[in-house]
Amino acid sequence: MKNILIASTSTLANEGFLDYLLPELQLHFKNCATILFIPYARPGGISHEEYTNSVALAFAKINKKVTGIHEFEDAAQAIKRAEGIFTGGGNTFVLVSQLHKNNVMGILSQVIKDGTPYLGTSAGSNICGLTMQTTNDMPIVYPPSFQTLGVVPFNLNPHYLDPDTNSKHMGETRETRINEFHAFNSVPVIGLREGSWLDVKGDKITLKGNLTARLFRQNQTPEELESGTDLSFIK
Amino acid sequence: MKNILIASTSTLANEGFLDYLLPELQLHFKNCATILFIPYARPGGISHEEYTNSVALAFAKINKKVTGIHEFEDAAQAIKRAEGIFTGGGNTFVLVSQLHKNNVMGILSQVIKDGTPYLGTSAGSNICGLTMQTTNDMPIVYPPSFQTLGVVPFNLNPHYLDPDTNSKHMGETRETRINEFHAFNSVPVIGLREGSWLDVKGDKITLKGNLTARLFRQNQTPEELESGTDLSFIK
Repeated sequence: MKNILIASTSTLANEGFLDYLLPELQLHFKNCATILFIPYARPGGISHEEYTNSVALAFAKINKKVTGIHEFEDAAQAIKRAEGIFTGGGNTFVLVSQLHKNNVMGILSQVIKDGTPYLGTSAGSNICGLTMQTTNDMPIVYPPSFQTLGVVPFNLNPHYLDPDTNSKHMGETRETRINEFHAFNSVPVIGLREGSWLDVKGDKITLKGNLTARLFRQNQTPEELESGTDLSFIK
Repeated sequence: MKNILIASTSTLANEGFLDYLLPELQLHFKNCATILFIPYARPGGISHEEYTNSVALAFAKINKKVTGIHEFEDAAQAIKRAEGIFTGGGNTFVLVSQLHKNNVMGILSQVIKDGTPYLGTSAGSNICGLTMQTTNDMPIVYPPSFQTLGVVPFNLNPHYLDPDTNSKHMGETRETRINEFHAFNSVPVIGLREGSWLDVKGDKITLKGNLTARLFRQNQTPEELESGTDLSFIK
C-alpha cells in the first residue's frame, strides 16, 4: 500500500529545515530506524555529502539515522533495501537527470508503489507526478527524459505562488504557465502552496496543512481545494 | 555584419505590444518592407495565425508587412530569403522544439551572423544565447536539444527580476537560479530587465534602455552594467 508524503517545501519562512513536518514524519517513518536520502537535486550545486549531512541533522531530532544514496555502490539495491526514502529539493532537472542516468527511476517508483514510506519536498515532490513538466526550475542540465515516478496520477507544482496583483512585471504568472502546459498536455496539475502537503495512503490522497491547494485541469476553470479533501477523484 | 536587437520583453506594463521599441524598430528594419515572423513560441498556446496577426498590427504602425514562417512550405528558404526576422515570446521550450524539428536552428543562426536584421523578444531573445538553459519558462514540451542560435557568446535571462526582499516565499529567486546554472555551466549570463535590450552591430554589443542589466559569471560576484555599456568583453 502506497505511503507517501508530497510536500510543497522543506522549509517555511523563519523556520528550520523540515521543522513544520517533523511531527508528521515521526508517524510517517515510525517503522524506520534509517532513512535513505536522495540528495541528487543538489540545491545551489552543493555536494551530495553536504546535503546529506544537513538532512541527517534534521532527522536526528526524531531519532532517525540518514544515509545518502551516493554512499552505496549499487543505488538500485540501496532503494530496494531502504526502510524509508526521502528525496529533497533543489533543481528538478538535475534530480531527474541523475535518477535516469543511474537507472533508478523505475525501481524507485516500484518500491514506493509497493509501500516503502516516501517523503518528497519540492523537487522530490515534483517527481511524484507523471512528468516533471510543471517544475519551476531552470533547465540547467538536459535530462534524458521528462518522465518521473508517476506514483500519483497527476503533476505537481510545488511552491505554488498566487499572482501578485500589484506587480507590473510582464513575465508569466504561475497560473499562466500552468495554463500554457495545458495547451500542450492533458495531465491535471496540483498547485501546492508552501505549508501544504499530500498524504497518500493506498489510493487515498488527502490534502494536509492549513492552506487550500489549486487544481488545474485542461479546458476547465481552476478550483481551490480545501485542506482535508480527498483528491483521489483527480485522474 | 550582425544586426540584432535582443529585448527583454515585447511589452511594458500599460503599453501596447512593441510600443516602446517602435522608434528603434523603424531604424533597425529600415531596409525591410516585409518582416518574417517566427510565431513558434505560441504564448498561452495561441495559434501561429493568431500570433502573426497581432504582430502584423503592431508592425503596421511603422508600415512594415509581416508574414508568418508557418505560411511557407519551406521554412529554411523563408529564412534565407527574409529581409528581416522577428521571433516573438511565449514558451522557450515550445519555440526551441519547433526550430529543431523544422531543422532551421542552424540556418537561422547563419543568416543572423551574415547580417539579416533580427529582433528577438523574451523567448525570441533567449534563443540568441548559446543555450536556452537560463529561460524562466516551464518545460511543457521536451525539446530534442537545449542548444540555441549562439549569435552572442553568452546566455540571456529575459524578464530579469530582482529578489523581493519582503517575500516569505521559499522558492528560489532568479539570482539563486542563475547561480545554480553556474554550478553546472560556465557560460556567462545577462539578466535583462523589462525595458532593456541589447543592440548588436557586428562584434559590438551595447546595452540600451534606461535600466542597468545584471551580469553573472561563474565563481564571480554579479555585476550591474550601466546602459550604454559595450558588452563585447563578455566571453
